[in-house]
Amino acid sequence: MDAEIIAVGSELLTPQHADTNSLYLTEKLNRLGILVRFKTIVGDSREDLAMVLRAGLARSPLVLLTGGLGPTEDDLTRDVVAEVLGRPLQEVPEIRQRIKERFRHLGRSMPENNLRQAQVPVGADWLENRNGTAPGIWIEHNHRLVVLLPGPPRELEPMFESVCMPRLASVAPGERIQTRIYKVVGLPESEVDQRIAPIYRGYQNPSTTILASLGTIEVHLRARAANDGEAEDLLTELGDKIELVLGDYVYSTKGESLEEIVGMYLVMRQKTVAVAESCTGGLLAERLTRVSGSSSYFLGGVVCYSNELKTKLAGVPAALLEAHGAVSKPVAQVLAEGVRARTGASIGVGITGIAGPSGGSAEKPVGLVIVALADERGTQVREFQFPGPRERIRHWASQMALEMIRRRIRD
Amino acid sequence: MDAEIIAVGSELLTPQHADTNSLYLTEKLNRLGILVRFKTIVGDSREDLAMVLRAGLARSPLVLLTGGLGPTEDDLTRDVVAEVLGRPLQEVPEIRQRIKERFRHLGRSMPENNLRQAQVPVGADWLENRNGTAPGIWIEHNHRLVVLLPGPPRELEPMFESVCMPRLASVAPGERIQTRIYKVVGLPESEVDQRIAPIYRGYQNPSTTILASLGTIEVHLRARAANDGEAEDLLTELGDKIELVLGDYVYSTKGESLEEIVGMYLVMRQKTVAVAESCTGGLLAERLTRVSGSSSYFLGGVVCYSNELKTKLAGVPAALLEAHGAVSKPVAQVLAEGVRARTGASIGVGITGIAGPSGGSAEKPVGLVIVALADERGTQVREFQFPGPRERIRHWASQMALEMIRRRIRD
Repeated sequence: MDAEIIAVGSELLTPQHADTNSLYLTEKLNRLGILVRFKTIVGDSREDLAMVLRAGLARSPLVLLTGGLGPTEDDLTRDVVAEVLGRPLQEVPEIRQRIKERFRHLGRSMPENNLRQAQVPVGADWLENRNGTAPGIWIEHNHRLVVLLPGPPRELEPMFESVCMPRLASVAPGERIQTRIYKVVGLPESEVDQRIAPIYRGYQNPSTTILASLGTIEVHLRARAANDGEAEDLLTELGDKIELVLGDYVYSTKGESLEEIVGMYLVMRQKTVAVAESCTGGLLAERLTRVSGSSSYFLGGVVCYSNELKTKLAGVPAALLEAHGAVSKPVAQVLAEGVRARTGASIGVGITGIAGPSGGSAEKPVGLVIVALADERGTQVREFQFPGPRERIRHWASQMALEMIRRRIRD
Repeated sequence: MDAEIIAVGSELLTPQHADTNSLYLTEKLNRLGILVRFKTIVGDSREDLAMVLRAGLARSPLVLLTGGLGPTEDDLTRDVVAEVLGRPLQEVPEIRQRIKERFRHLGRSMPENNLRQAQVPVGADWLENRNGTAPGIWIEHNHRLVVLLPGPPRELEPMFESVCMPRLASVAPGERIQTRIYKVVGLPESEVDQRIAPIYRGYQNPSTTILASLGTIEVHLRARAANDGEAEDLLTELGDKIELVLGDYVYSTKGESLEEIVGMYLVMRQKTVAVAESCTGGLLAERLTRVSGSSSYFLGGVVCYSNELKTKLAGVPAALLEAHGAVSKPVAQVLAEGVRARTGASIGVGITGIAGPSGGSAEKPVGLVIVALADERGTQVREFQFPGPRERIRHWASQMALEMIRRRIRD
């Protein structure tokens, strides 16, 4: 069963907004063996949406529409689908009730226009939205399946996962696709490819793709088979060989982020961590605490942007700052040791650097970052030179700090 | 003149690859007053591409195709365009010569299949590619303009900029497009719409779109006129009315982020800020320091996840934590006042809350966040109840803290 995705919204036709929902949907659909054959992006226009929908219905057994289910005048998806399919909209009292309750729960009065979201085409099913007021809509029509999903990813994704996936699984034909993702830190993309290309070239199925994002290289394997078990076996056969040559540069095989993996190690080893950050401005603390349950191992941190606060909050002697400058190995070391001593954490991390775009010099250029890690075995200091803009330098700095924690606890 | 963009390539129908060329092209086309009305993504399939191209020719005066101009068997764009337009491919000796030279220059022998790239449909012009072997193709056909561009951005972008933009400028009608974006914080989307719909409904030009992202509502106005000045006038006429009813909920009209605006106010008023964060884990500090130059007003912060560190780093008395619990108004107040006193900042901000998913209770549910702001005029404390998952609660908490700073400095 082939699918096509229609993303609705004039903002998706501007230079600022890419359609990303279709990537999420494609991944989920592929798992069910459903391939996406067309993707179309159309604005908030009755005529244009109707045209695109008619073309979709003519060629694709499954048409997914995202967006345009909001309460405003621009939100036309419900109306246009009802019109094109010849199924007038009807209010569903239960949806109306849920929307009202949602507003009451938030302590706000419900604007009248939100009631448009209680309407669905005759004969359609509605799909519960736990994170917003717009329900999804599921319509079986003339051997076509049309599914309407809300645009915001935090509404669309849980709805698709919990309601659409099981329903689609029961109507989709046999073949299944399974994927496995190896996340690698500490090797450049070209070296990852050099190590694994001789292996994956011998396989058509699974297929292999290498993707580089900020500080992580991902190796994606994708296997097709008659059922999930066979697809898993194919993944394991190739995947084990790949994992062997990448060794401990692989930090995750189940999609976990680096901060999640670090958290798991910290829990496992019953260690705690505290951080003293300068150029990353709180990013390392923020990444560590993204993980639910991080309060069991993350004690806290200080963000000391000014020299004065490096002294006051992390105990860096003013004389040391004077002698070596704020961006120096001795200062990074004392940041790590100071925050460890003050908080009583097993591991203290200190970061200092120049995130730019200004503040660099010939001796200490933009992108210079020093990370120190202090624990009961002593203090390790590493110096990095990261390319790119401010945001990228800060991300890389936090990434390498996490990687230093990971390696230290693994050892 | 409306345009549509067709991106060709099976990789663009996988979960890993988004079409980003169309964002670049849209920005350039908009400048010439050309709106993109449809975007379609189609795989390396003759049949599918032909179907999509026919639909495009039927409805759009300008059809841009990206990708599928490479030398391999998968690269079908040239063939399919030639076939659909009924203009057979012909080899252009000059292109052949250039491709050969390019290979010679790189010291490599030319694979025979690269010669496919020397073929263009009869009557078409070719566009020089300075960064690759595939030339672009420009075809005027039955009052339609069809432009074929290579897929790799480093080939497409220079070609479009240097060759297509000038040619399009000469054929595009005089009309120009200008946009303005109002960013709003503190009002729900539906209320923004209720306030401004009676105004924007009276205007076809500029067109108005409302977008909600995390903690910010964006109102996009887009005006078309004979020249940039007239388009600006149209934006001002509608925009001023919209700004009036939204009042000081509008924090930005030039695309700035909330943290940039807060930074600008802090600089203007010569104020400094320091933060004490619990549930946001460093996110507020991280957002404040995303802004280049923030070291002039952001002194630093403490992330005190454990109660012990709330006492040690921000001076919250243990008895107060005992009496009210860590998530309480008195603790938020002392966090703000404590970090202000310890750092000497003009403004201290304290955040405490329950980001979840665990840790909530009937009395203090997940999503409860208390933000305090202390300055020389006293301390302001606000309690919020945010819905959604951990990440969203944390983002909203940082958003409302930034908004409290903005309002306090404006006053």
